[in-house]
Amino acid sequence: MSSAGPLEGVEALLFDVFGTVVNWEHSITRELQAKSKGVDIDWNAFAKEWRKGYMITTRSVAAGGEGPSNVDVMHREILDRLLTETKWSAISNIWNEDEKKDLVLAWHRLSGWPDTTEGLYALKKQLIICTLSNGNVRLLADMAKNADLPWDVIFSGELLGSYKPPRNPKTYLGAAYHLTLPPNKVAMVAAHYLDLKAAASFGLKTVYVRRPTEDTVEERTGTKTKKEGGDVDVVVDSFTELAEVLPKARSLA
Amino acid sequence: MSSAGPLEGVEALLFDVFGTVVNWEHSITRELQAKSKGVDIDWNAFAKEWRKGYMITTRSVAAGGEGPSNVDVMHREILDRLLTETKWSAISNIWNEDEKKDLVLAWHRLSGWPDTTEGLYALKKQLIICTLSNGNVRLLADMAKNADLPWDVIFSGELLGSYKPPRNPKTYLGAAYHLTLPPNKVAMVAAHYLDLKAAASFGLKTVYVRRPTEDTVEERTGTKTKKEGGDVDVVVDSFTELAEVLPKARSLA
Repeated sequence: MSSAGPLEGVEALLFDVFGTVVNWEHSITRELQAKSKGVDIDWNAFAKEWRKGYMITTRSVAAGGEGPSNVDVMHREILDRLLTETKWSAISNIWNEDEKKDLVLAWHRLSGWPDTTEGLYALKKQLIICTLSNGNVRLLADMAKNADLPWDVIFSGELLGSYKPPRNPKTYLGAAYHLTLPPNKVAMVAAHYLDLKAAASFGLKTVYVRRPTEDTVEERTGTKTKKEGGDVDVVVDSFTELAEVLPKARSLA
Repeated sequence: MSSAGPLEGVEALLFDVFGTVVNWEHSITRELQAKSKGVDIDWNAFAKEWRKGYMITTRSVAAGGEGPSNVDVMHREILDRLLTETKWSAISNIWNEDEKKDLVLAWHRLSGWPDTTEGLYALKKQLIICTLSNGNVRLLADMAKNADLPWDVIFSGELLGSYKPPRNPKTYLGAAYHLTLPPNKVAMVAAHYLDLKAAASFGLKTVYVRRPTEDTVEERTGTKTKKEGGDVDVVVDSFTELAEVLPKARSLA
């Protein structure tokens, strides 16, 4: 008896970017260390707090709250706020205006995971590959040039009018609409369970990518496929693995 | 004495697509001939009327009029209308529903001009290259895969909320906004004088590309640069020529 693959009919992949495609934690920590001016603090912890502030703000905006619609502005506001905190008093004044501007642009210069570029080129041959990120278009375009990410289409929260992952149709369904595809012919690819859960609530298929520094707090590392009793369609450890299993997952097995 | 190049500071190019990047007239005529079922009419004239109907509809929508927001729907409606006209009675019933659907998708399969792909790869190394087309995202993504067009970003009228070229800020300034660039750091590239005139009215720089089958009706083939007494910034005959002259045009001469 034949059974359909879990991604049967899928014609486009939407990729979460920060954490899934690029290793923001490593890249930002490295940039901070290079600009440390000899100050010895836990730069990795600072990078994580910067990222956390961004997550909180985008989720608030996605839920209808107040906040800037541009990720650069957001990253700058969060940086400025962190630098006023007692906890980070050792670095409150080490950077001038130009250096802070440049530091915000470090988010445009993030590096991919080791499998990212090779995997995306292989996937691009099979279907349409798109970002679906909260980053702004310019940031995603700069990052793509820098890290060699051959996107077919850059979709961003700003372009589509909101942020993910809360249950906001503007992002997930907006991307499907512009691809002229029903949601079940589109799969969301992310290293974050909550992003996939939101995508699935709108009928998209889901691909979970295990990344060592992502989904650690929420203890989602045990995310399983439906076949294994979980609730995502496919689980992989890399984009190259996804490119290998995809043909089978898209067709009748 | 040094003088600034006409595209000084430009960091991104926005490309008109139909006619400028792809040779729609040749591609559509060829597809129609291949599906002619032996009927001998002036297929090139039919292709031109199909295109003309599209131009009229998008301009009407851009000016605030009624009309579909999806180019596929538009192409289908115009095709259906043409097939009811006495003038085209010889072909009124030669295609069934599936064949008409496939014919509409011919607009996704347009071929580039001989210089298109080589020129775009060379330009992509120098700055951000984007579409700014009235085509929908899916059509532009399919076309890019088919004709090997390595866009950094696909901007479409549908994505930005309107159509060009009438003086509608949503398209030209919308693209600049998402690139976080002031309009004078963005150049519009088109084989249509009116598109450039509209772009210039919002402060964008302009590159006119001479294409043999475009701008013939409006007798714009004599379009000149400001230096030559005209009103565009640069005039070229191909994207490869643009890639060669661009470094000088972007910097102090």
